[in-house]
Amino acid sequence: MIRINENYRKLQASYLFSEIARRVRRFQETNPDRDVIKLGIGDVTRALPPACIDAFRTAVEEMAADDTFRGYGPEQGYDFLREAIATNDYAARSVDIHPDDIFVSDGAKCDTANIQELFACDTRIAIPDPVYPVYVDTNVMAGRTGEWNNGRYSNVVYLDSTPDNNYVPDLPREKVDLIYLCFPNNPTGATVTHDQLAAWVRYAFDNKALILYDAAYACYIRGDSLPRSIYEIDGAREVAIEFQSFSKSAGFTGTRCAYTVVPEACRAYDSQGDVQFLNAMWNRRHTTKFNGVSYPVQRAAAAVYSAEGKRQTRELTDFYLGNAALIRDRMSTMGFSLVGGEHSPYIWLRIDGDSWEFFDRLLNEASVVVTPGSGFGACGEGHIRISAFNSRSAVVEAMRRIGALFQ
Amino acid sequence: MIRINENYRKLQASYLFSEIARRVRRFQETNPDRDVIKLGIGDVTRALPPACIDAFRTAVEEMAADDTFRGYGPEQGYDFLREAIATNDYAARSVDIHPDDIFVSDGAKCDTANIQELFACDTRIAIPDPVYPVYVDTNVMAGRTGEWNNGRYSNVVYLDSTPDNNYVPDLPREKVDLIYLCFPNNPTGATVTHDQLAAWVRYAFDNKALILYDAAYACYIRGDSLPRSIYEIDGAREVAIEFQSFSKSAGFTGTRCAYTVVPEACRAYDSQGDVQFLNAMWNRRHTTKFNGVSYPVQRAAAAVYSAEGKRQTRELTDFYLGNAALIRDRMSTMGFSLVGGEHSPYIWLRIDGDSWEFFDRLLNEASVVVTPGSGFGACGEGHIRISAFNSRSAVVEAMRRIGALFQ
Repeated sequence: MIRINENYRKLQASYLFSEIARRVRRFQETNPDRDVIKLGIGDVTRALPPACIDAFRTAVEEMAADDTFRGYGPEQGYDFLREAIATNDYAARSVDIHPDDIFVSDGAKCDTANIQELFACDTRIAIPDPVYPVYVDTNVMAGRTGEWNNGRYSNVVYLDSTPDNNYVPDLPREKVDLIYLCFPNNPTGATVTHDQLAAWVRYAFDNKALILYDAAYACYIRGDSLPRSIYEIDGAREVAIEFQSFSKSAGFTGTRCAYTVVPEACRAYDSQGDVQFLNAMWNRRHTTKFNGVSYPVQRAAAAVYSAEGKRQTRELTDFYLGNAALIRDRMSTMGFSLVGGEHSPYIWLRIDGDSWEFFDRLLNEASVVVTPGSGFGACGEGHIRISAFNSRSAVVEAMRRIGALFQ
Repeated sequence: MIRINENYRKLQASYLFSEIARRVRRFQETNPDRDVIKLGIGDVTRALPPACIDAFRTAVEEMAADDTFRGYGPEQGYDFLREAIATNDYAARSVDIHPDDIFVSDGAKCDTANIQELFACDTRIAIPDPVYPVYVDTNVMAGRTGEWNNGRYSNVVYLDSTPDNNYVPDLPREKVDLIYLCFPNNPTGATVTHDQLAAWVRYAFDNKALILYDAAYACYIRGDSLPRSIYEIDGAREVAIEFQSFSKSAGFTGTRCAYTVVPEACRAYDSQGDVQFLNAMWNRRHTTKFNGVSYPVQRAAAAVYSAEGKRQTRELTDFYLGNAALIRDRMSTMGFSLVGGEHSPYIWLRIDGDSWEFFDRLLNEASVVVTPGSGFGACGEGHIRISAFNSRSAVVEAMRRIGALFQ
């Protein structure tokens, strides 16, 4: 008899964005004349940079002729892209990451979801709260958690991100094996300093733990005060895997390209306590279960590192940061306390009361869509996330409407 | 302490295509003047159909302007593609598959690799031999097999495909839960009749088993005598999941698009023996661990179903079938017994002795690369696979050279 993986039954309905969509749809049906402004979902709104489009076009033409056509490529990604990443995202900042450490994929979602397959079933995981739900859900599916109880799974160490710690979680008091971190954070927009991150790396060394570092929003960091990669911390190459994406840096959410860094020195242990290197294991996983990213998409991604590509992606992220600064400024003026919106496209707002009620109020009274914080975890209650991904005029108008409510 | 998934240590080195590449490289280094013809790897060689290129180009231009740009799409695929698949690959052949049953992905490799996650750890699996190695390896990683011993994993029911059964395996004598089938087969090129497939569907009903049907080569079937989908068999929608791909039908090996069909009625059981529907489970898996296929790629794939796209992909597969017929004819004339090459781009040749020795002889004496059968499993020994994916002139020349050796 074919039996299911019963761990799936522990999963809670992933209702956050579908519930938002349902409420927005109902509102629009009953208020067809109202212009709804969406600052909810974390999806970019502006076109791909022209440099990426040019490279994309050229590669599509290559696929049109037998003598330039490309079939299966290397599962790990083409050398032209892996080398461009190593040179520009790492060597240029004096971080020693080799092309062989880099695995190109179709999304940081897939990679952060799949990486847990490399580890033992009884791995003790630590996951921030609030959090991008993929980290938790994929561990539920794999059977590493217990049941859902009072808004949390058992057998998970939750790392609370609260006003008290300025939304940067403290080191866990108990021993954990696998730690998920994300900075600049989704959903809070909080950032981490070199010293704070170094404390996590030290924890990983002291406890033979591993850090999974989601740096998908690193492209929003400005200046040199904050780390853009965990490998800026000494020793991190032994104890951390890093996830990066072209989604938020170059608008690839619908085009699909990302990469994961598993340095050659990165290690775990077998049941005898002997060191096992994770680069070889991830390579085996990647080549067995994945067949590489679409060739024209890899060419488009590599164009991010051309001189024009760098200028254009900077312009793009600057634009969204401009929106974020505007939201930050207006909401602060209205008296809200908040974090994020600097070095991040997200603003995490403290509110009074229930976050779904606040969501409904903004929708019904201002026709503005945000994301209720409780959808990201228990610590998200009493907060909402405002996203800077929209046009300038939409952001200005949304702030005007919210201002009319609260001032 | 972070411990690895120890199942990875059971995996055998996946050396088949890397070992072929190594031997070919060495041969070319020592014989730089010899023109090597590759009929080894199963990768297409001809350009994307013009209809796909046109749609690809148009979609790239959409990504270049803010008002036509697409961000995150539905993880399951855009409706325009799911509907085109349902209409053309199913309804047109009177098979009742709905768009909601179809999950667009970036490759049949990923889907056949990931599908096992839905099932219990102690699922008893049946896998053909010879076989595409992904089916076995992904179950090894998940811990469903025992150790490797004498060329096979314990706890796997191998379905022998041999000259005695004309390379279509018999039903297992023992009870199994999950059955992998692939027709037209990779690597043998063998095909299955409606009656043979109906017997497997009956087995699945009788034993509450599930069939995973890899139909990536269905586009090479000509005429109406053979099933192109398992859903042509009555009742299969309850007991089978099907995998299809644009790789071999429209040359998408480097462009990446495929789809998996999990009909609404398709069922497994929980530990209480109650029915659980797999469409909802796969939907949960797909939306949690995957973010959809690149929008321009989905547009290119949908163009396969336009009038020109149908004509052009037919022309493309006809071309490779022409190569296959030529190989079949010439090798038969030389006195080899073989299967495949009709309704399939692969020819599976019986040879005397060791398949790596035969590989070396063809490489050294004819400068022709094929694939040694033993790389696909124990039953592959004494065979080689010849692929029809090359230009006509290369195939003609390869046959001339091999003919000079054996006639």
